[in-house]
Amino acid sequence: MELYLIRHGIAEDKALNIKDEERALTREGKEKTQKVAQRLFDLSLHFDVIVTSPLVRAKQTAEILIAAGLSSQMEESSHLKPEGNIHNWVTDWLEPRNYPQKTQLALVGHEPNLSEWAEILLWGETKASLVLKKAGMIGIKLPEIGSPLGRSQMFWLTPPKYLL
Amino acid sequence: MELYLIRHGIAEDKALNIKDEERALTREGKEKTQKVAQRLFDLSLHFDVIVTSPLVRAKQTAEILIAAGLSSQMEESSHLKPEGNIHNWVTDWLEPRNYPQKTQLALVGHEPNLSEWAEILLWGETKASLVLKKAGMIGIKLPEIGSPLGRSQMFWLTPPKYLL
Repeated sequence: MELYLIRHGIAEDKALNIKDEERALTREGKEKTQKVAQRLFDLSLHFDVIVTSPLVRAKQTAEILIAAGLSSQMEESSHLKPEGNIHNWVTDWLEPRNYPQKTQLALVGHEPNLSEWAEILLWGETKASLVLKKAGMIGIKLPEIGSPLGRSQMFWLTPPKYLL
Repeated sequence: MELYLIRHGIAEDKALNIKDEERALTREGKEKTQKVAQRLFDLSLHFDVIVTSPLVRAKQTAEILIAAGLSSQMEESSHLKPEGNIHNWVTDWLEPRNYPQKTQLALVGHEPNLSEWAEILLWGETKASLVLKKAGMIGIKLPEIGSPLGRSQMFWLTPPKYLL
């Protein structure tokens, strides 16, 4: 099973008159994310399901991935909010294994969550050793049996600039 | 300073009548490595120097990178042989810092060395958690001061198929 951790695109700056969860992608953020999505499609990527944080900037990113043909199924989950915890979603989604062996699962969310979750999957702890840019992604192969924590392997980490 | 760890392309199989250090890239290995090199050039990558393992398959890979215009300087080092040790080359090349701050240094070598060295730079220890394919690469940002061991950050890890 492969897990793709995808960070939302460039969003509006924080401001007093807008709630964090309502910050939307900027025009540049949308365009860049669309180009990344198109490139992923051209590279034959396909996700069985895209699960997204319910925050607007993440949902818009997931919608762009869907529109590019990268998946036909999209779900929202509070596990992927900025305050989400990897142990909750690993328990809910991966133990017992709820997906068939070859599932390609994409999670759209936020930093520092995604790069820290990748570290926990690879090494069991966090050390701020991975740089995940907006609209960038991480590809991780989960072990066939047993807990994925500290036992997974990374095969891809890319900023968007190398996908344009 | 950025460090790029590049694995040699697809080489001839091991055989009784050929020494390991003389195994050459296959035709497919050359062609794929040339495509990767062209893509890296198109992405505006440039290395101040490419240091290569003296083994034929690594040297041929480095020569392809040079021919694609990715660097004008190539050196061989026994530190990058399969039996090489990261502590030796970190001491020789990085402590005291022998390169200017913004140097882009590419090392062409072998597995499992390269992915293990990346883990040691990021994490201080190895756990076989990174998958580095032939003609694939890893991009690492070294800290501006102090030892890079366990203190560096990875910004790129890609198999060749996502560069073609």
